[in-house]
Amino acid sequence: MINIGIVGGTGYTGVELLRILAQHPQVSLRAITSRKDAGQSVAALFPSLRQHVTLDFVDPAQAQLDRCDLVFFATPNGIAMNQARELLAAGVRVIDLAADFRIKDVALWEQWYGMSHACPELVAQAVYGLPERNREAIRQARLVANPGCYPTAVQLGFLPLLEAGLVDSQHLIADAKSGVSGAGRKAEISMLLAEAGDNFKAYGVSGHRHHPEISQELSQVAGQTVNLLFTPHLVPMIRGIHATLYARLTQPEGALDLQSLYEQRYAHEPFVDVMPSGSHPETRSVRASNLCRIALHRPRHGDTVVVLAVIDNLVKGAAGQAVQNMNLMFGLPETTGLEHIPILP
Amino acid sequence: MINIGIVGGTGYTGVELLRILAQHPQVSLRAITSRKDAGQSVAALFPSLRQHVTLDFVDPAQAQLDRCDLVFFATPNGIAMNQARELLAAGVRVIDLAADFRIKDVALWEQWYGMSHACPELVAQAVYGLPERNREAIRQARLVANPGCYPTAVQLGFLPLLEAGLVDSQHLIADAKSGVSGAGRKAEISMLLAEAGDNFKAYGVSGHRHHPEISQELSQVAGQTVNLLFTPHLVPMIRGIHATLYARLTQPEGALDLQSLYEQRYAHEPFVDVMPSGSHPETRSVRASNLCRIALHRPRHGDTVVVLAVIDNLVKGAAGQAVQNMNLMFGLPETTGLEHIPILP
Amino acid sequence: MINIGIVGGTGYTGVELLRILAQHPQVSLRAITSRKDAGQSVAALFPSLRQHVTLDFVDPAQAQLDRCDLVFFATPNGIAMNQARELLAAGVRVIDLAADFRIKDVALWEQWYGMSHACPELVAQAVYGLPERNREAIRQARLVANPGCYPTAVQLGFLPLLEAGLVDSQHLIADAKSGVSGAGRKAEISMLLAEAGDNFKAYGVSGHRHHPEISQELSQVAGQTVNLLFTPHLVPMIRGIHATLYARLTQPEGALDLQSLYEQRYAHEPFVDVMPSGSHPETRSVRASNLCRIALHRPRHGDTVVVLAVIDNLVKGAAGQAVQNMNLMFGLPETTGLEHIPILP
Amino acid sequence: MINIGIVGGTGYTGVELLRILAQHPQVSLRAITSRKDAGQSVAALFPSLRQHVTLDFVDPAQAQLDRCDLVFFATPNGIAMNQARELLAAGVRVIDLAADFRIKDVALWEQWYGMSHACPELVAQAVYGLPERNREAIRQARLVANPGCYPTAVQLGFLPLLEAGLVDSQHLIADAKSGVSGAGRKAEISMLLAEAGDNFKAYGVSGHRHHPEISQELSQVAGQTVNLLFTPHLVPMIRGIHATLYARLTQPEGALDLQSLYEQRYAHEPFVDVMPSGSHPETRSVRASNLCRIALHRPRHGDTVVVLAVIDNLVKGAAGQAVQNMNLMFGLPETTGLEHIPILP
Repeated sequence: MINIGIVGGTGYTGVELLRILAQHPQVSLRAITSRKDAGQSVAALFPSLRQHVTLDFVDPAQAQLDRCDLVFFATPNGIAMNQARELLAAGVRVIDLAADFRIKDVALWEQWYGMSHACPELVAQAVYGLPERNREAIRQARLVANPGCYPTAVQLGFLPLLEAGLVDSQHLIADAKSGVSGAGRKAEISMLLAEAGDNFKAYGVSGHRHHPEISQELSQVAGQTVNLLFTPHLVPMIRGIHATLYARLTQPEGALDLQSLYEQRYAHEPFVDVMPSGSHPETRSVRASNLCRIALHRPRHGDTVVVLAVIDNLVKGAAGQAVQNMNLMFGLPETTGLEHIPILP
Repeated sequence: MINIGIVGGTGYTGVELLRILAQHPQVSLRAITSRKDAGQSVAALFPSLRQHVTLDFVDPAQAQLDRCDLVFFATPNGIAMNQARELLAAGVRVIDLAADFRIKDVALWEQWYGMSHACPELVAQAVYGLPERNREAIRQARLVANPGCYPTAVQLGFLPLLEAGLVDSQHLIADAKSGVSGAGRKAEISMLLAEAGDNFKAYGVSGHRHHPEISQELSQVAGQTVNLLFTPHLVPMIRGIHATLYARLTQPEGALDLQSLYEQRYAHEPFVDVMPSGSHPETRSVRASNLCRIALHRPRHGDTVVVLAVIDNLVKGAAGQAVQNMNLMFGLPETTGLEHIPILP
Repeated sequence: MINIGIVGGTGYTGVELLRILAQHPQVSLRAITSRKDAGQSVAALFPSLRQHVTLDFVDPAQAQLDRCDLVFFATPNGIAMNQARELLAAGVRVIDLAADFRIKDVALWEQWYGMSHACPELVAQAVYGLPERNREAIRQARLVANPGCYPTAVQLGFLPLLEAGLVDSQHLIADAKSGVSGAGRKAEISMLLAEAGDNFKAYGVSGHRHHPEISQELSQVAGQTVNLLFTPHLVPMIRGIHATLYARLTQPEGALDLQSLYEQRYAHEPFVDVMPSGSHPETRSVRASNLCRIALHRPRHGDTVVVLAVIDNLVKGAAGQAVQNMNLMFGLPETTGLEHIPILP
Repeated sequence: MINIGIVGGTGYTGVELLRILAQHPQVSLRAITSRKDAGQSVAALFPSLRQHVTLDFVDPAQAQLDRCDLVFFATPNGIAMNQARELLAAGVRVIDLAADFRIKDVALWEQWYGMSHACPELVAQAVYGLPERNREAIRQARLVANPGCYPTAVQLGFLPLLEAGLVDSQHLIADAKSGVSGAGRKAEISMLLAEAGDNFKAYGVSGHRHHPEISQELSQVAGQTVNLLFTPHLVPMIRGIHATLYARLTQPEGALDLQSLYEQRYAHEPFVDVMPSGSHPETRSVRASNLCRIALHRPRHGDTVVVLAVIDNLVKGAAGQAVQNMNLMFGLPETTGLEHIPILP
């Protein structure tokens, strides 16, 4: 059994992590910390976990996280970087579900996240936890930077095209849409049902924190700095991300069979489902599961490929991918505890 | 033209009041106050009002409210009671959309609202602004306590039965359901779309502030203290209240024609629509209008009447009713500025 | 392994049954029939089942259901009664998720369901599949009438009170609210998102098919014909039932400890969770799980108990309860394949 | 007073047309037809219209539409083309809210709409009813083809850029999102709340009927055939369209001031609101109003402009625009009856 600690389990990625781990056959939950809710039972805050999670939240100071095999940080940005060094030194492995270790360029990170980085030396050794690209490195990693939700969907959608060098990397567009749980379990007026319900809007069009993360990773894949337009939107639904991706083909039409390209690229990926050509994947078709479903379109046989990719932002976009990374780090079958069927309707 | 001031226009009742008043032919909006947003334009906070409301929020100290003919308080509870005395002394009439003047028993009010009342002597002279009961008093009123949203729906539903003395006033049940805008424009986790969406729950079953208000008024109607069970629920929708009311008939079946009783009682009420017997009024059928629609059922010809009543909590349950009261107070036709057709779908 | 056939798997109870059975360790899915969709793959209709269900829909004539150990009918009312006799004669056990075998009084059934019953002689031997009441009979049953969704929530909420004889059985009220999936996967205008969304209404207040079912069962418990008012409402959400139940106590206050009564009654029930007194269970706290959560209130220490009960209409109200019944019929641990944690948010 | 007839008033554009016309000061509603609902009162089908619309639906044969000044067709595609000739011959003016007269290339129309055109000779004389482009022609028109909902939003968003010749017309992208009322009041499984709720998906990515309409009009503006990628998506909300438009600038950065370009282009348009640069217009900010709000972005000062445009699909995208056209055709102030303030929240 893997002894697990969770720092900051009172948000949506935290409760989702608890849901998945409580049903994971190789995991023993040892401690979950919360300054604010210390002493309260987890199940009192999240009645969905009654009978399944019997822990109380404990103060971080009492949590003895250094006795765990692995600690997940399901915290706001800027927390993990203050605690990771000590845990790693104690031999504990760390998966950060926030953004502290995702951006290799520390100055860029500091600019977007508005704080000084507490342990820039760890950034270099952190492995970006997208198994579909970095599986081997993740197996060896002591510190994993779990990808953001938008970045996961956008990267899985673009990867085969960029790896194959088929598209103009200087004019990529990601028109992305997210359910409101992506904003976290925070009291914000703009996320009230009376504000975000029965409504649709873009946000952060001129700049969003996930842009440098996606650009960094896609640029690695492309072998050059990509130019990406990233337009996030807020959908009046709870879970789900839908990325509508546009890329211009730089090679003549005839030779390419994009559908086969995607099918081959993801043939052995347990959590990426390439749907039949012309499909329209729905976010609910992956609800509460670790799957990413992808479909390809080439409208009027033109020079632009439209890729549709859907994930559940809390699972493949956060807690599920974190557990997938844990499975890899501890030598378990990658799908252990992650084979739940999506909830539909 | 009536010169109008609004105190606290940054909540949902405030923006709704602005929407209605900006289209009202006899009103001149003079000032709208907000401590927090002073200096900001109203339309910047509420883009729906662009081109229709050109005012900026002003600090209460600069608002010169004493030059208005009427001031509306669209504030949290406990604000109007601190300013009403001075305004009334200056000859300004006041309509409080909050609860400060609704409960005649000041001690009871203080118990439920958790504060000392700042001007108990005004409570007695305040008129409870339900036009369907108190029309004549409202015409003369200088200070109107605008009813709560639940109380409006529940009272309009029960009134004819209690006035006619047909039911057991010791066993009334109001099973009421409200959209989330009833909780106001406040940053609360429980009102997030990710919390309140795709979900249904009761709340305050053991006690809710609207209970003493409803009881006080229904007891006046019944001529004795009624015993009411009031069970509020939260519906994953933005606007609307649906009250499902149960009352036991205390007289033999045959003689009664309840449908006629209701139709006659409300025959001259411009904002109460008694639907054909057996109807099921929908909240959306009154969305964004000042209407209350009511339908009657008597399942299996038993001794219990089921009354269904719907309103828009922000209109007939708040801002619309306030304007209806204003019309009465200033001698205007009661429906002036309030004849918008409901928005469906 | 239990060999399973499903008749009519294209509705919501069908796809939910498939979701649960595909993850059940003791089940082998042999055939799923659909006249309309014969030849199509199940996963093409329900992409959420891709990789998990590889069957195609087959025409009933080709399904060889008589080779199964158990056949579920996830069909409209009136189908199972035409096929059950033959299957039972072939030694196949049957669970009907529709209403064909729920009402013992065949004439009453025919009146409510508007058709002649095709096999009235089977009605008597059918066991009503509410394990919390009929566990032993279900273990022996060859034909199970799986309860309706509303009836499950209402019965579990009222049971302890009626068994203990504490309340006036002549004035029971069930004010019930359901998500739209309860209406099934049928093309009906009233269930469109543009109609049912952002809206709330009652329906069937003067009469609903679940009323005779609930009355029959509660009357058995009470030892006399109960008088129940049942008021269903439609909530703009997908899954979930919330029953708000009112019962008047017929015994003096002091002696009763209702909370203990409920806790003891359900102490050994794996799928009934009695929450702390004064709780407000939310429908999402049981989303996609087989749980029923219950909480008790006694407002102002009056003579009326308010019971709040929530279930997922598609799980404990349909497919999950059917699998629970299957587990009992085949001697498996009752919770096998049913321990999924609710999906929240 | 303008005497008005409506053909086919049982859909969403029909009820919205009724809502607007019933509050229009210069209109007399004479007849509304429906084969299916003839004899039923309009208010029985749409309770929101009780007290405001007293007409019954009449059979088209009895409607005496030739006595009207203007007939609106709020019908499915293919109806208006069969009745327009006769009405026009009788001197009645016609506004078709469906697609029969939108596409000038009849063969192309027949291909996309799957039927033979009944009066191709009228197509040429029909005026495309987008006032922001064709105001003068509309004033003189006898037959107006009211634009589609997506086409209205996409055109208003792209117009200034294409008129000014600033962008590459061969690589336009319109990533568009619509609420479900855009699909009409039709019983379709995919539009059920249980299907479309809490879900997001693209549809028609490889081809959609609004593509040729948008292309035709934008090509006229651009003076050459444009190449447009149009990707519609379904949003779990009732009303609203959000168009996210991408166009590549073909001129060097410095000289352009796009914000001023848009502000000047729409300075005298009563229903187009250019928001401050960098804004994110929300669909609810135009809910139930005839407004289009537009905002511009130029992420990282790159070569691509992102235009955000929102409308209410049933108002500016259908019934409101039809009334705007009516006002123009009959010499009324263009905003008559169309100045409702959006409903927010």
